[in-house]
Amino acid sequence: MHNNPGKDQGLDRDFRNIWHPCTQMKDHESVPPLHIERGEGIYLVDKDGKRYMDVISSWWVNLFGHNHPRLNKALIDQASRMAHVLFAGVTHTPAIDLAESLVKLTPPNLTRVFFSDNGSTSVEVALKMSLQYWRQTGQAQRTRFIHLTDSYHGETLGALSVCGINLFREKFENVLMENIEVAGPDCYRCPLGFKRESCEAECFEPMEKALEENRETIAGVIVEPLVQGAAGMKMYPPVYLEKLEKACDNFKTHTIYDEVAVAFGRTGSLFVCGEYELKPTFLCLSKGITSGYLPLAATLASEEIYQAFYDEPASMKLFIHSHSYSANPLACACANETLTLLTENKFLSGLKPKIELIKEMGNKTRELKWCGEFRQIGMIAAIELVRNKQSKETFPQEERVGYKIYLEGLKRGILMRPLGNVIYFIPPLVITDNEIETMINTACESIQAVLGE
Amino acid sequence: MHNNPGKDQGLDRDFRNIWHPCTQMKDHESVPPLHIERGEGIYLVDKDGKRYMDVISSWWVNLFGHNHPRLNKALIDQASRMAHVLFAGVTHTPAIDLAESLVKLTPPNLTRVFFSDNGSTSVEVALKMSLQYWRQTGQAQRTRFIHLTDSYHGETLGALSVCGINLFREKFENVLMENIEVAGPDCYRCPLGFKRESCEAECFEPMEKALEENRETIAGVIVEPLVQGAAGMKMYPPVYLEKLEKACDNFKTHTIYDEVAVAFGRTGSLFVCGEYELKPTFLCLSKGITSGYLPLAATLASEEIYQAFYDEPASMKLFIHSHSYSANPLACACANETLTLLTENKFLSGLKPKIELIKEMGNKTRELKWCGEFRQIGMIAAIELVRNKQSKETFPQEERVGYKIYLEGLKRGILMRPLGNVIYFIPPLVITDNEIETMINTACESIQAVLGE
Repeated sequence: MHNNPGKDQGLDRDFRNIWHPCTQMKDHESVPPLHIERGEGIYLVDKDGKRYMDVISSWWVNLFGHNHPRLNKALIDQASRMAHVLFAGVTHTPAIDLAESLVKLTPPNLTRVFFSDNGSTSVEVALKMSLQYWRQTGQAQRTRFIHLTDSYHGETLGALSVCGINLFREKFENVLMENIEVAGPDCYRCPLGFKRESCEAECFEPMEKALEENRETIAGVIVEPLVQGAAGMKMYPPVYLEKLEKACDNFKTHTIYDEVAVAFGRTGSLFVCGEYELKPTFLCLSKGITSGYLPLAATLASEEIYQAFYDEPASMKLFIHSHSYSANPLACACANETLTLLTENKFLSGLKPKIELIKEMGNKTRELKWCGEFRQIGMIAAIELVRNKQSKETFPQEERVGYKIYLEGLKRGILMRPLGNVIYFIPPLVITDNEIETMINTACESIQAVLGE
Repeated sequence: MHNNPGKDQGLDRDFRNIWHPCTQMKDHESVPPLHIERGEGIYLVDKDGKRYMDVISSWWVNLFGHNHPRLNKALIDQASRMAHVLFAGVTHTPAIDLAESLVKLTPPNLTRVFFSDNGSTSVEVALKMSLQYWRQTGQAQRTRFIHLTDSYHGETLGALSVCGINLFREKFENVLMENIEVAGPDCYRCPLGFKRESCEAECFEPMEKALEENRETIAGVIVEPLVQGAAGMKMYPPVYLEKLEKACDNFKTHTIYDEVAVAFGRTGSLFVCGEYELKPTFLCLSKGITSGYLPLAATLASEEIYQAFYDEPASMKLFIHSHSYSANPLACACANETLTLLTENKFLSGLKPKIELIKEMGNKTRELKWCGEFRQIGMIAAIELVRNKQSKETFPQEERVGYKIYLEGLKRGILMRPLGNVIYFIPPLVITDNEIETMINTACESIQAVLGE
């Protein structure tokens, strides 16, 4: 770590000019950011040559490690033809290939791909398509979305209006659209006393009730399937999604799957909806779609949605939404190579032993005095720290337990970014067995360095 | 053009899987999109080798032509080090260099750079920073923004709520935040009877009044300086901005400059605010920032704004907004090379003869029977078509005059994308004199092919 910020002039220039995302900049007075110069596989290397294991895949985006020869090649090959072209009245092969692959690999009801730039915009597109669909099919009164407690779907104001985490929305509460929050699964502290391994999603009842009570005005229900990422990798069983699908079918409303964080191998499968044979009306994708190389997002929609916009030009039923860099060819080229890497040589089956190893490591981790829960789905795992295992009492925010553990991790060469009191792992999928052991052991050491043994 | 869509299998696959932005997909039954394979300078080349002059810079993003050796090199060099790393708790040299350059090149009151992915998000960031600033400085009641008629600032729901063009917002009206629309300049049809060359922005009065009447509740005023792009390249004089600055100073509210479309040389200068020594509170940049290579955006903020967020962590005054690909190193590398190209060898002065040539061509264009107005600022020009020069009567939307002219342009090898009845030019800055002549002459031919001589 940088104890003398004056030493690296780059850091001074950073401090003078840059406003970092989701950061109290005053923290950089004492702890400047890491000045990362290059990436090598799952490691980030700073200006001094110090290496950090990127156990959060640079905000959950990187799948195959940094500086991957085949992804680099895909990028460079495309650059030699064309970096970008507008995507209205124009098409190009990288986007055609990508859209075709996405339609093939996702559930059969999803037939159309709309491109944008990031997770937030992929959600904004789904919300807007849903609203316009209802307007064009005689139900303009359907203008509200249901989201879960602790949900996160991005931070542009539309996406933020389906966010259930107060931290993100409280400063903007009075300008957000009025949606409906429903108590979602809370498996570690299940208020009904069930366990996620054996429950039947009895906690679905409030959703059923909300759908019933607002049956005339609900445009759709948005969820992060299986893992609520920003909430601290809260995990819930697929039976909740099965119930949701039935209920939304019953009340004839849309389901929006925000798989921005969980798709592309994180859970061990390509898509959660595909793995459990679920049929969302919309599927939002981003992050891993380019293996963490550059921004791209896709919103997939069902054929029924598409057909409600498909008409003579004079009808003005078209979907008027665009971003300059929609379907950026460089990004599409990386995304195509990503899908090749994910689907060739039984890559996903190859994750099984790693997933098993993380599970084994979890058993050991649970013995930690401060480990309230070790939870895991596929290649995503999290340790929820508590002051007391019995009462599940949490550490107060002002103690900044997560932040202190983060600093200890840096000393030991791993880059974590705890969410409150949750230390989580969402490493590049190419992490090796040895590295998995190092990752979890080092996290445990860092926890003990802060909280004691 | 493709008269037989069955010929190019790529087009069939496009038609089956892709939902293009801002497009009535049914139009593709008769006119499939161009299947562009590569770019060469200011030309796009389709699968059959046919070349199209990209006179709209692929949605106003491209500055130096497609497939530019130095931009390609900047991209490839960065890829060899690291495509991406998260931007919280981490920094990297491409972002440090870019932020420092942007702060140096923009007005002195702008001191901090916040990165995001596209024009919409750059605006969302400014809106959110403004709202949070007021909340943290004891004026939480300031929650509304003023925007102009015919304004466009992006299409995520927050950005859309400061849009003045009905076409973009009407389907979503009932979920948008309540802002205030003020009649802006309308120079071609000035209701006060002035001319933009000689007026004193007498049309500023409604803005003054709106600021006065809502002095307690206005968070800020957002404008597209000098050119309202999506409105049809509507142009107005800088005196309007000077009056706005005085009024906003007077009423102590924020000014947000959305220079997404006009910055980086389009008007002949780097930034409109810099050219006229104006001091916006926020400056939103995207599009040309990477020379049209890949998505990146920046929101610059004044030091006063920054300081209202800078405090002890426990204050929770930080700006909680992030996108996974914030400050993507590949994009920053292209942006740094863009700024080098724009500032070396007197590049901007070199535009003057081109700007003069466009002006000369405009004089000829005005003689067209259908040319209501030829207007120009720097390298941006537009022909507003009217049925009658005297009455300025416009063509009805259902005649699709712009669309027909677009198709005639394609036959003749130029890619325009008219906005209603406005044919506009915003070519790559490297367009040559000969190409400028071809561009405008071909547009005029296309107009006459549709409307007669």
